[in-house]
Amino acid sequence: MRDGTIRVRVWNEYLDEQKRPEVASVYPQGLHRTIADFLDREEGITAEVSLITDPEQGLSEKQLEATDVLVWWGHVHHGEVEDRFAWRVVERVQRGMGIIFLHSAHKSKPFMSLLGASGRLSWREADERCRVWTASPSHPVAAGIPENFVLEREEMYGEPFGIPRPEDTVFISWFEGGNVFRSGVTFRREYGKIFYFQPGHETYPVYHDENVRRVIINAVRWANPAIIAGKFDCPNVEALEKIGAD
Amino acid sequence: MRDGTIRVRVWNEYLDEQKRPEVASVYPQGLHRTIADFLDREEGITAEVSLITDPEQGLSEKQLEATDVLVWWGHVHHGEVEDRFAWRVVERVQRGMGIIFLHSAHKSKPFMSLLGASGRLSWREADERCRVWTASPSHPVAAGIPENFVLEREEMYGEPFGIPRPEDTVFISWFEGGNVFRSGVTFRREYGKIFYFQPGHETYPVYHDENVRRVIINAVRWANPAIIAGKFDCPNVEALEKIGAD
Amino acid sequence: MRDGTIRVRVWNEYLDEQKRPEVASVYPQGLHRTIADFLDREEGITAEVSLITDPEQGLSEKQLEATDVLVWWGHVHHGEVEDRFAWRVVERVQRGMGIIFLHSAHKSKPFMSLLGASGRLSWREADERCRVWTASPSHPVAAGIPENFVLEREEMYGEPFGIPRPEDTVFISWFEGGNVFRSGVTFRREYGKIFYFQPGHETYPVYHDENVRRVIINAVRWANPAIIAGKFDCPNVEALEKIGAD
Amino acid sequence: MRDGTIRVRVWNEYLDEQKRPEVASVYPQGLHRTIADFLDREEGITAEVSLITDPEQGLSEKQLEATDVLVWWGHVHHGEVEDRFAWRVVERVQRGMGIIFLHSAHKSKPFMSLLGASGRLSWREADERCRVWTASPSHPVAAGIPENFVLEREEMYGEPFGIPRPEDTVFISWFEGGNVFRSGVTFRREYGKIFYFQPGHETYPVYHDENVRRVIINAVRWANPAIIAGKFDCPNVEALEKIGAD
Repeated sequence: MRDGTIRVRVWNEYLDEQKRPEVASVYPQGLHRTIADFLDREEGITAEVSLITDPEQGLSEKQLEATDVLVWWGHVHHGEVEDRFAWRVVERVQRGMGIIFLHSAHKSKPFMSLLGASGRLSWREADERCRVWTASPSHPVAAGIPENFVLEREEMYGEPFGIPRPEDTVFISWFEGGNVFRSGVTFRREYGKIFYFQPGHETYPVYHDENVRRVIINAVRWANPAIIAGKFDCPNVEALEKIGAD
Repeated sequence: MRDGTIRVRVWNEYLDEQKRPEVASVYPQGLHRTIADFLDREEGITAEVSLITDPEQGLSEKQLEATDVLVWWGHVHHGEVEDRFAWRVVERVQRGMGIIFLHSAHKSKPFMSLLGASGRLSWREADERCRVWTASPSHPVAAGIPENFVLEREEMYGEPFGIPRPEDTVFISWFEGGNVFRSGVTFRREYGKIFYFQPGHETYPVYHDENVRRVIINAVRWANPAIIAGKFDCPNVEALEKIGAD
Repeated sequence: MRDGTIRVRVWNEYLDEQKRPEVASVYPQGLHRTIADFLDREEGITAEVSLITDPEQGLSEKQLEATDVLVWWGHVHHGEVEDRFAWRVVERVQRGMGIIFLHSAHKSKPFMSLLGASGRLSWREADERCRVWTASPSHPVAAGIPENFVLEREEMYGEPFGIPRPEDTVFISWFEGGNVFRSGVTFRREYGKIFYFQPGHETYPVYHDENVRRVIINAVRWANPAIIAGKFDCPNVEALEKIGAD
Repeated sequence: MRDGTIRVRVWNEYLDEQKRPEVASVYPQGLHRTIADFLDREEGITAEVSLITDPEQGLSEKQLEATDVLVWWGHVHHGEVEDRFAWRVVERVQRGMGIIFLHSAHKSKPFMSLLGASGRLSWREADERCRVWTASPSHPVAAGIPENFVLEREEMYGEPFGIPRPEDTVFISWFEGGNVFRSGVTFRREYGKIFYFQPGHETYPVYHDENVRRVIINAVRWANPAIIAGKFDCPNVEALEKIGAD
């Protein structure tokens, strides 16, 4: 936050993708790299990456202390994130760090622990068309986004979505196969802002889409904390008014 | 509320419909009559009707005092509802009367006055298929409703929908032509519960659909108040603790 | 919003106060003048005043179009504000204008129409001490405000407060006589942000208090709209996807 | 839920209390026993107890399956509840089990995991008077509770309270020493209802107070689930509409 630059960290597994040509052809250096690159090019944003294979799974105290907004993409290795690191993320979000959960991160440990919810949904991979509708056009995350935009192919995620009532439902998606999904939703946990955004199946060029990028950039700016609070405690405090006067 | 019976009043304009054969063929006695009839057949519910052409536009003090849940269907004559009757409805909802706004009631005076919102949306009459998705399956209004159900023809209502953040988004609809809509949403205003439900274009047999009827019946039971409060005032009260002791 | 300056308008009745020496001694030129002055001195804020005795009650189309955030103080003359001007305010808030309701504005027409609620509460004038507690310390409206601050004398406003569930409960007040009150609460209505703030009885020097001023300044900055939307309508739209393909 | 009886389980640590005469004199058999007893005497409620020293810490699959509403009182041994049992509670709440957190349970693992929040607050043990105000008088949990009631001695818990924005703020407490606290708040997590209630310091006869008992009884009835859902999964589903028709 010093000098106003937003320090973003993009977390990814980057294990299977390296082995699957249909992913590698879309994201040659991993989708974390694609995401970090377009963020890093933005005025006032710098972006670094963390991988599950890094020391402390890329979530060291030092790394988190240097992170204003964490972007999380994970999928088949959710269960391998160690509880102590997941809770470290949760605790830092409570103190102010913004967090953006992308696509399959709805089953990640930080998502489920921050929301207290299962993240359950239905899904389908069928190369189908998706229309993302802006339900809250005045929300900062929707700035510059048209009333609706098309992703020609996206994995379907469908309702019912196992989340607490969102603070704002910014986007709702229409899927060609007949489903709908609250695809952009916000939450807060004490000082920290949370945004979940559904687009981003790894075999489609979704993170190359200009509207998707705009949403993520907007979300980073929206989630950037004014302050990061110190560690919370439960202080024993003195009375401010006289007790037992009567 | 005496003896536990829920006293419902179904309000309608019933002016143009009488003259349009495509409406009369679907609802020969008006859609208020169809709705009141299926409600009245339910155990523990009695239903009466009010028309805009009735004395005091069917919203007399006596009628509202005998109403636990008001069901509102209006359309081209919204502006003819007198302000004093619209505010009478608003005031009674604040004190506990449930209210269910159907379809085009999103631009009625009681809707806009209770929500403080414009109710704006986009629309299209194109005989298109609509899928109503249950986003909150544990909500009482969704009891017995499948994960999704189809209305073969419905008028499209589309996002963005000009409402405050709902308490619960119970249903979200998918339209064949590419739109989505938060088609079942709840609000509260002090003691009163509010449900808006989108299905119900007057030329389609929507209120003959079993799922639509089930939703409305559920909504009536959910919105039925435990108590109706007396008129609210701002009482001047005595101190409970000693002032100026120090 | 051009050039980033926030254009504030402070609305007041300013009828009885002129005649009551206990008010005039605290706010010689009216409390609207005191409020406008401290706002106008802030970097990036300009403030003007409107009175109920002005043409169109100080709420002309032209005046509202030149207003980003409206600050409202009213009391015994709520009923004299014409409905057409109250609705003009409501409609402009829906399109983005911020609004800050101070103290007795909880019974003003714009307050009750935007919230759909009665604004009922209990009250007492007893020169009692009030402690304003910051319940949401990370909220922008609480920036720079201590965990609690004291108003040595304030009119008591007490729960239950007749409002819809707030988006954020920023402040909760403790009163010496034994009452509590949600004294700083936020709402939104479509594009517009709403803040209600309880302090401000006209015979106490509350608007000379540094913390109270800071809250109001913060609220003005928070409620300043990114954009003011055009007039809302309900457009008839074309299908985006082919209907009846099957 | 069979036959309509609500099956309550009251969980407690019951370790230190046995050794402290000032607790034992108020709750000779433990406060879990006092709470379970007054619940069990209610029509339509049966109550059992679980202790941290029981097998599986009193939270076996079988016990939870036979529990409609769990009441949780814990304090200095929060950290000894095993993660696997805490998550078992969380998962069952998501599927519908109601849960009522009493007093110091704001730092229990199920509380923090369901809410994703720290539960931080300030506190003071000073034999001070507490007034519990009913902020939402129409809420089922407040049925039969007066506008305010007094606890002559209670431990102070003070704002800011580290919780997400509650669904309903039912009670707000006033403390003689100058603090306020949102002492009765509701949340939901998917199918499950959550109520936190602040009163209940172990050395005061709070659970012998008729109003406190009424609130807990009300909360049990309110949190009783209509249904307990099956285990959530993320099903791979077929398209409902034809894909690629154009």
